[in-house]
Amino acid sequence: MINIGVDLGGTTIKMALIDDDGKMIDKWAIGTNTIDNGKHIAADISESILKKMTQFNLERSTVRGIGVGAPGFIDVDSGFIYQAVNIGWKNYPFKEELEKAIGLPVVIDNDANMAALGEMWLGAGKGAKNLICVTLGTGVGGGIICDGEILHGTCGMAGEIGHITVIPDDGGSCNCGKTGCLETVSSATGIRRLALAALDYNDSESILRDIFESKGDITSEDVFTCAAKKDPLAATVAEKAAYYLGFALGALAVTLNPEKIVIGGGVSHAGDSLLQPLTKYFKQFALPRVFDACTIDIAKLSNDAGVIGSAWLCIKKINRATVK
Amino acid sequence: MINIGVDLGGTTIKMALIDDDGKMIDKWAIGTNTIDNGKHIAADISESILKKMTQFNLERSTVRGIGVGAPGFIDVDSGFIYQAVNIGWKNYPFKEELEKAIGLPVVIDNDANMAALGEMWLGAGKGAKNLICVTLGTGVGGGIICDGEILHGTCGMAGEIGHITVIPDDGGSCNCGKTGCLETVSSATGIRRLALAALDYNDSESILRDIFESKGDITSEDVFTCAAKKDPLAATVAEKAAYYLGFALGALAVTLNPEKIVIGGGVSHAGDSLLQPLTKYFKQFALPRVFDACTIDIAKLSNDAGVIGSAWLCIKKINRATVK
Repeated sequence: MINIGVDLGGTTIKMALIDDDGKMIDKWAIGTNTIDNGKHIAADISESILKKMTQFNLERSTVRGIGVGAPGFIDVDSGFIYQAVNIGWKNYPFKEELEKAIGLPVVIDNDANMAALGEMWLGAGKGAKNLICVTLGTGVGGGIICDGEILHGTCGMAGEIGHITVIPDDGGSCNCGKTGCLETVSSATGIRRLALAALDYNDSESILRDIFESKGDITSEDVFTCAAKKDPLAATVAEKAAYYLGFALGALAVTLNPEKIVIGGGVSHAGDSLLQPLTKYFKQFALPRVFDACTIDIAKLSNDAGVIGSAWLCIKKINRATVK
Repeated sequence: MINIGVDLGGTTIKMALIDDDGKMIDKWAIGTNTIDNGKHIAADISESILKKMTQFNLERSTVRGIGVGAPGFIDVDSGFIYQAVNIGWKNYPFKEELEKAIGLPVVIDNDANMAALGEMWLGAGKGAKNLICVTLGTGVGGGIICDGEILHGTCGMAGEIGHITVIPDDGGSCNCGKTGCLETVSSATGIRRLALAALDYNDSESILRDIFESKGDITSEDVFTCAAKKDPLAATVAEKAAYYLGFALGALAVTLNPEKIVIGGGVSHAGDSLLQPLTKYFKQFALPRVFDACTIDIAKLSNDAGVIGSAWLCIKKINRATVK
């Protein structure tokens, strides 16, 4: 059958037709219309999918359903969105609205969880049943899979690993209201902040400083590019970001004993420049048996992880025989 | 039916007959015979249980099976013990040996996990499906339940929360080979160590010091008793132990989003003297939504948690109709 994966972001909505073997038949995207607190989104998604089904001559009976990865706080069973700031939703029955609009069954989960499921199905976590997926982007997102199942916790907040405290005293302020969260030092934003502070604190010559002086700003990518070129200042910053990430992942690993940790998001493009120091610190903070049982890898599916995971959840959760 | 719970320790083996409603019909204990690397233990348990079944006129057909909580590294599916240092076992097929000796089905899990299941079934975690159980004894043990299931991880090491690093730099040495583990500061042993260091560092008058001078030693219990009496030195030590525990539990809670955290073991007898500072620091390190959804309580079942959890696992895992 065909499964439709949807990855709903604040700017674009990515969609894909994916068969039961994981073959991607088509993928496309539309803009996210946040006007009127996002009330047109369900209709936009529905219209776009129905058009695509016509284009591919897909009968309704051959489509299992729609999986949607959404941002914000979600009740996954009912598909009710408590709050999704970037979209404008507050107490919005999204699953109900989308099912009404499209007439097909819908399953919903958090976007970070969907990305983790995608990497487990077809990406860097292929075959692993115990998996932690960390997305290092503007923030730090997390999806945790234990025995093949996503952890949701008692109110859907499980996996918020960006908010593990890694600097207990005098850490930087986090958007969540706390200080010293992993997100403040190991996200793209956090690494940029660490680098700007290092440039300010330190007068030494540095190719990172040259970039800063010519562009007027730097990115986390600049930090890792310069670190790979052995720039001492950039290397110190990269080391620091990896240290805190290794500290948090060490705590997660002695708690969850994963087979695989998958690192995704923009920062993960640093590849070995990140993995090498990260593995060193992860080893320092994990138990030997836990370290030996676990591999850290860079995510493979990039921007497709969300739609692929959403399609996988369709297969897992929608028993088409029982729904219309 | 009747379920037999067994809690296997390095010194004693606790056992109990428990019915399907959780009523404890009898409990008793025998010594742990560690001679010949523990090879007599299966026979000892079997003999003791069969005697008890005769005493209570229990037919084999009314006994569902035996649940055993064992220390060490275990493969729970096969009941194979990789290593249990206190018992003397190394690569020992314990489940197989016990089943052979007693002729009844056996299920095995880690002792800390069994205690967590016990508290979930009949104790402080009653009704919670997402639960973390922390045992503060000589070491710090942990059992994690997500959606009603014990987390084992990829090689049975999940829940080793005593080895979360809480002091990244210059922490005390831990038995595991790392430094700065939670166990080095918040176990009974760790708290005693912190207190001895504080007495050494500090010359101030203190009722804790008086106890130390009269007994020649102090225990973690002395620390909390004196802290409850507002002894400043003892209060500082208790606060420190609670701080590190709150730090680790904060990280666990943003990861797992539990409904309940149950604190057991000898140190938990401190009650509010522990819970009060602990809750303060837990709030500091957990996200507000996560904090609001979670209650921290002292364990209720004391030394019976293990046998009760073991009986619960019998009910859950042994389908008596399919086994002899």
